[in-house]
Amino acid sequence: MTKVQHPISNYQCVSCGTEYEIEPFRYQCDCGENLDYIYNYNLIKRSWSKQTLAENPDRSHWRYLPLLPVQNVPENRSLQVGGTPLISFPEIANEFQIANFYIKDDTRNPSGSLKDRASDIGIQHATELGEETIVAASTGNAAASLAALSAFYGKKAVIIAPASAPKAKLTQILQYGATLILVKGSYDDAFDLSKKVVEKYGWYSRSTGINPVLSEGKKTVALEIAEQLNWKVPDKVFVPVGDGCIIGGVYKGFYDLLQLGWTSRIPKIIAVQAEDSAAIVTALMHDRSIEPVKAKTIADSISVDMPRDGMKAIRAVRKSGGFGVTVTDDEILSAQKDLASSSGIFAEPAASATYAGFLIALNDGKVKKSDEIVILITGSGLKDIPAAQKKISIPDPITPDLDHFKEAIYFIS
Amino acid sequence: MTKVQHPISNYQCVSCGTEYEIEPFRYQCDCGENLDYIYNYNLIKRSWSKQTLAENPDRSHWRYLPLLPVQNVPENRSLQVGGTPLISFPEIANEFQIANFYIKDDTRNPSGSLKDRASDIGIQHATELGEETIVAASTGNAAASLAALSAFYGKKAVIIAPASAPKAKLTQILQYGATLILVKGSYDDAFDLSKKVVEKYGWYSRSTGINPVLSEGKKTVALEIAEQLNWKVPDKVFVPVGDGCIIGGVYKGFYDLLQLGWTSRIPKIIAVQAEDSAAIVTALMHDRSIEPVKAKTIADSISVDMPRDGMKAIRAVRKSGGFGVTVTDDEILSAQKDLASSSGIFAEPAASATYAGFLIALNDGKVKKSDEIVILITGSGLKDIPAAQKKISIPDPITPDLDHFKEAIYFIS
Repeated sequence: MTKVQHPISNYQCVSCGTEYEIEPFRYQCDCGENLDYIYNYNLIKRSWSKQTLAENPDRSHWRYLPLLPVQNVPENRSLQVGGTPLISFPEIANEFQIANFYIKDDTRNPSGSLKDRASDIGIQHATELGEETIVAASTGNAAASLAALSAFYGKKAVIIAPASAPKAKLTQILQYGATLILVKGSYDDAFDLSKKVVEKYGWYSRSTGINPVLSEGKKTVALEIAEQLNWKVPDKVFVPVGDGCIIGGVYKGFYDLLQLGWTSRIPKIIAVQAEDSAAIVTALMHDRSIEPVKAKTIADSISVDMPRDGMKAIRAVRKSGGFGVTVTDDEILSAQKDLASSSGIFAEPAASATYAGFLIALNDGKVKKSDEIVILITGSGLKDIPAAQKKISIPDPITPDLDHFKEAIYFIS
Repeated sequence: MTKVQHPISNYQCVSCGTEYEIEPFRYQCDCGENLDYIYNYNLIKRSWSKQTLAENPDRSHWRYLPLLPVQNVPENRSLQVGGTPLISFPEIANEFQIANFYIKDDTRNPSGSLKDRASDIGIQHATELGEETIVAASTGNAAASLAALSAFYGKKAVIIAPASAPKAKLTQILQYGATLILVKGSYDDAFDLSKKVVEKYGWYSRSTGINPVLSEGKKTVALEIAEQLNWKVPDKVFVPVGDGCIIGGVYKGFYDLLQLGWTSRIPKIIAVQAEDSAAIVTALMHDRSIEPVKAKTIADSISVDMPRDGMKAIRAVRKSGGFGVTVTDDEILSAQKDLASSSGIFAEPAASATYAGFLIALNDGKVKKSDEIVILITGSGLKDIPAAQKKISIPDPITPDLDHFKEAIYFIS
């Protein structure tokens, strides 16, 4: 009897290289490090081409099913995750004298962040494993996302988050009907507890840096960028980095496409971290292994002491020939305002960090005139209004008549 | 010489029926009431069909250009307004024993609300008239939307809003770099001032109920619903109503499609208002003209004393055979939570009102078993977190260990 070939050949540890059979599902390597999904690209190519993809009417990220670690598209339902716009800004490109400037606007996902990509694929994976309860540690976006998609698919979501998470994200989680456990401590404390909870209760884990499915979900953003640019990949992609899962996914997406022969190279991937939460960029700069930091930044989504997907992040930058950049909180908040007023896209601080990082790289001569740049906007500014209020001031109200109007408005002489 | 035929034949007053030539552009009828755009459907049909539309790769609402009151699609740029998902919820349909239940999720627009449709078309119209400064009175969403799209297109936006508008919306407006004038008073005071400002300074007005372009922009939501349902329109569409501009647009969209012969009927359109801001529904119920109220509701986006597009709203309901429903603030807030936890869609109070209205209509026997229902979700819950916090409570943080976890989580015995 011939064994049926599987589009995924096996798991491989990103650290020690150990390989594992694809079934049963496993979270991590015995060495404690994270796993990669290894695809059988030749097999995938036999039944999937740019042409068959172009003919697929599904605009969500489920159009990339052959490159996803699940068997099926969720039955009869989609909250339309992914399919977010890649928007060209010729004026910004002109201003900075570069070839092209694009924003991938992932604030347009159902819960307002890129994390919906991982939650959507993760929940389908849980369903295929017969799991009904899903637990996640998160600084906020992943939790809000898991809560939203769990509400949609009728799953139970248990969220463990630091008490300091922005109120908007906590409100989202509770509105979606998830069970919320706040911990006294940091994201790292929440993460450690979630790991123990998964071990004790056997629930499905949607925690970054444990579950290899999640970076596979996040990679769909790279698949979309490439397809939206008609398979001509950009030169540099700026990615906000906390745990390292998104950037690991971005690399994996471009890597997959190169293996399929659909693209000719992988773009340089640039890791942007907040100055005081920069474990990964520090390791990159000093060419050493990752050491924990005591994270402190207004960009809560990338505030991480010990990155849980650090190896994938380092690999993404090194293998793509990219680099790391750090940005201060003040640079992040200024970039948020500049970005919103020049593009019409209102990004949360962590997402705005990519624009701040782009400006610094430009200043440092690390962006070329011929460059086509993409910055990833991973979360909506509406998720943290108190942060966004730091660089603006709400004016005093006036009596509603023309005289007071004339006084109040500054550009009429 | 033959006169070139224009796809728009003329303007017509919704009240006295007076017709005006299509050029020059005019805001209102000499009688003070609002105008409709009258299209030459036979001319449009000559060069536009369901087939040519299906072949248009543009997923934004610009795909409906032949039915829009502008000459061209904005050159080389789109912030991707419209193209929002229409999501089917078989479980909700099952629960309430109706044929189908759909949510049109317009929170997925660039600034998080349906208003982006009107701003996008309005700004293009201003551009075609050579106008650079655009002024709007708004309770928040229209303002945030105008600010976002003006940032994108490089226009000057001047916003006049009541000081009571939610902080998130004011923050958005300022982040996008618009000029914000807050007035001591209500939306109606802001509206009156905006009218005087337009008269005095000659700027383009994006105020609802003055400018007939805006309901034409908003109608694209109806065009999308029909196309997404493959031109088989639903039975009932629930629409939140403040000024009446959205519901007027929804009717106009379905009306246009019927005239083109692309659909066979207009769905019944149901106006949902907050109990203490119900000028339009009150007029409908007592079959009399609209009288101003003293509006008071948590649903700021539909808090209106005197509806500025009241005539179009009344027409939408009457001509479609629909009806009006009022909902209390408590019903709105409960519906917000129910909707989020059963659908994964987090809506602001005004948008949640449609779900509350649907539940009431169902209870009153006004929804049939055979009904295919669409509710419009017009704005994101992230825009008013304080309101969304009224029906939830953020739990106290715990010490991050398994014992405290077990104590905190309620469904583990």
